Amino acid sequence: MTKGRIEAFSDGVIAILITIMVLELRVPEHSGMEALRPLVPVFLSYVLSFIYLGIYWNNHHHMFHLVKHVNGAMLWANLHLLFWLSLIPFATAWMGENNFDSLPTAVYGVVLLMAAVAWTIVQKVIIRAQGPLSPLAAAVGNDAKGRLSAFLLVAAIPLAFVERWIADAIYVAIALIWLVPDRRMESQAKRAPE
Amino acid sequence: MTKGRIEAFSDGVIAILITIMVLELRVPEHSGMEALRPLVPVFLSYVLSFIYLGIYWNNHHHMFHLVKHVNGAMLWANLHLLFWLSLIPFATAWMGENNFDSLPTAVYGVVLLMAAVAWTIVQKVIIRAQGPLSPLAAAVGNDAKGRLSAFLLVAAIPLAFVERWIADAIYVAIALIWLVPDRRMESQAKRAPE
Amino acid sequence: MTKGRIEAFSDGVIAILITIMVLELRVPEHSGMEALRPLVPVFLSYVLSFIYLGIYWNNHHHMFHLVKHVNGAMLWANLHLLFWLSLIPFATAWMGENNFDSLPTAVYGVVLLMAAVAWTIVQKVIIRAQGPLSPLAAAVGNDAKGRLSAFLLVAAIPLAFVERWIADAIYVAIALIWLVPDRRMESQAKRAPE
Amino acid sequence: MTKGRIEAFSDGVIAILITIMVLELRVPEHSGMEALRPLVPVFLSYVLSFIYLGIYWNNHHHMFHLVKHVNGAMLWANLHLLFWLSLIPFATAWMGENNFDSLPTAVYGVVLLMAAVAWTIVQKVIIRAQGPLSPLAAAVGNDAKGRLSAFLLVAAIPLAFVERWIADAIYVAIALIWLVPDRRMESQAKRAPE
Repeated sequence: MTKGRIEAFSDGVIAILITIMVLELRVPEHSGMEALRPLVPVFLSYVLSFIYLGIYWNNHHHMFHLVKHVNGAMLWANLHLLFWLSLIPFATAWMGENNFDSLPTAVYGVVLLMAAVAWTIVQKVIIRAQGPLSPLAAAVGNDAKGRLSAFLLVAAIPLAFVERWIADAIYVAIALIWLVPDRRMESQAKRAPE
Repeated sequence: MTKGRIEAFSDGVIAILITIMVLELRVPEHSGMEALRPLVPVFLSYVLSFIYLGIYWNNHHHMFHLVKHVNGAMLWANLHLLFWLSLIPFATAWMGENNFDSLPTAVYGVVLLMAAVAWTIVQKVIIRAQGPLSPLAAAVGNDAKGRLSAFLLVAAIPLAFVERWIADAIYVAIALIWLVPDRRMESQAKRAPE
Repeated sequence: MTKGRIEAFSDGVIAILITIMVLELRVPEHSGMEALRPLVPVFLSYVLSFIYLGIYWNNHHHMFHLVKHVNGAMLWANLHLLFWLSLIPFATAWMGENNFDSLPTAVYGVVLLMAAVAWTIVQKVIIRAQGPLSPLAAAVGNDAKGRLSAFLLVAAIPLAFVERWIADAIYVAIALIWLVPDRRMESQAKRAPE
Repeated sequence: MTKGRIEAFSDGVIAILITIMVLELRVPEHSGMEALRPLVPVFLSYVLSFIYLGIYWNNHHHMFHLVKHVNGAMLWANLHLLFWLSLIPFATAWMGENNFDSLPTAVYGVVLLMAAVAWTIVQKVIIRAQGPLSPLAAAVGNDAKGRLSAFLLVAAIPLAFVERWIADAIYVAIALIWLVPDRRMESQAKRAPE
């Protein structure tokens, strides 16, 4: 089975998710500066989630570049990942429209954490299918970034109820960690046969 | 005629359907826990329909993997399938927002049944075009899963007016039946020439 | 320049248009049968426009199958076509939600007519670029169906103000004319080198 | 790394953006001519933005036709471009629904300017990666159109507060400048090896 359609479907879903988030930037009825002010937190949460979805798309691109054959388990693990990503627009809008309040901030973290777990599952399913010489296993290595992100998200969720700005700062920090493209995979991709 | 565009178009439509359903998870105006409670049935119906659309996409992937040449009849049979799938977000939201009430539950079953009928038509159109050695016919076999699902859906629709939870349980059961990837098609796909 | 992206972009836009129309089937707040009744005309207009967009996608598929090289004029002629198609969801919803009233019915006809004109322009641009042995020109022939549709649409628009049901019947009739796949192009496609 | 997915993802996002804009053409509740009148400025702003997004898609098509290998920097520069393009529907609707008022007109200009800046960054990232014999560098040349557009946008933003119609006229003028397909890139593309 070829990987073309799983890539195309994932691209489609992520492209739609990244775009429908902008619909939560509701068009104000008035044209004055004060009409834009309530949109500021919504806009900030949009920027953050745009970056997160961009990171997922980017790394999805890198990960499947190392995949040759797709099996049924990968299709479902990938759909499971897309499910959690599909909740990002909801969590983003709820957090933005409630000015980064505690519960929405925590729920945002839960969605990010579940997406991270789903990502790890996709990775494991691919590595298991590729066997002992898995190019993805070589690229992922000990997955330090993945472990650190999961640890930080687990910490951020309860912290949202103590001091929500710490949780928000953690979300920004994780995004920055991943914004740097994953050089390991990129260099692995260069070595991998086309 | 190549199958690339029919796959791309179907992927696009299913990706959009699976994603716009999440727009029915309306963002609450308040940030407390009680704001999330009315969303629970909407969320549950979303999960169910996400799985159904995932199953359709997955099996569509498998089915068209066994197709080499596309004809006009396949294009229209496929559009007919997409039409019924396009009603899933409406039926999902109506059922979820009315707490799985009888009529919406029955309508949800009707939409699923019509999608199943449309799927069977696509299958038949492909098999007829492939002739006596059709790889799809070999993969589908006696289509026990398809027959069972159709039978269960036909039973669920009237049951929704007697005891709606039975109908809902049937929908969950059918999803579980199909969640197991269709090994026959997958093994057939391996044997089929690329 | 390859035709892959113009096909992918058109597929994407048409897939989105065909899907967002369903958002106008607003989810009723109640779960009784009477909640579905006001949706009937909206549903009928949705079915009609789904078929029209299906026809356009289908014929777009056939037409570009006969194209090898894409130039700038084709890109813009195609975008012009997509512009008019993008107004179909608006015209559909306005017509459906106002119970096929005269002005919305006429506007629907205007949008269909402009889409038909835009389609003819795409055809002419491709034929001109392909030169005297254009396979598309051979497939289109005297374009009897296209001429008849345009003539009927020009008649339907004023008729919408006289007796709107005649205009609606004309729209249905045109859809039926085109629902039959364009055998000329299909047979031409078979002869065309891959 | 192949460019297929970056093209597919960009096509997807631009296709969605160009299509969701039409959702701001809110379906009127009445069916009379006067129900259409408030939609006129929204429609005009839609036409303008459709053309802008069409230009971006068109030029994106031409630009990536000259790219062979994609690196991480290109992926992120491209996502940055898509981010600014994703704000066009919001800016379009705000401008159209407020009858081309000063602040929305200025904000529309800011979004267009940022998209133009993001475009230039993508261009620079590609040219740097292609090295001294960059086919894109040869195609872009001194980028007179890009410089002129940026200069006009910088002028239009403050002018929106002096005489907003001048700013709107500038936006139309820039669209007309770009509507002419970029012959340099097209001719370069012909020379470039497939």
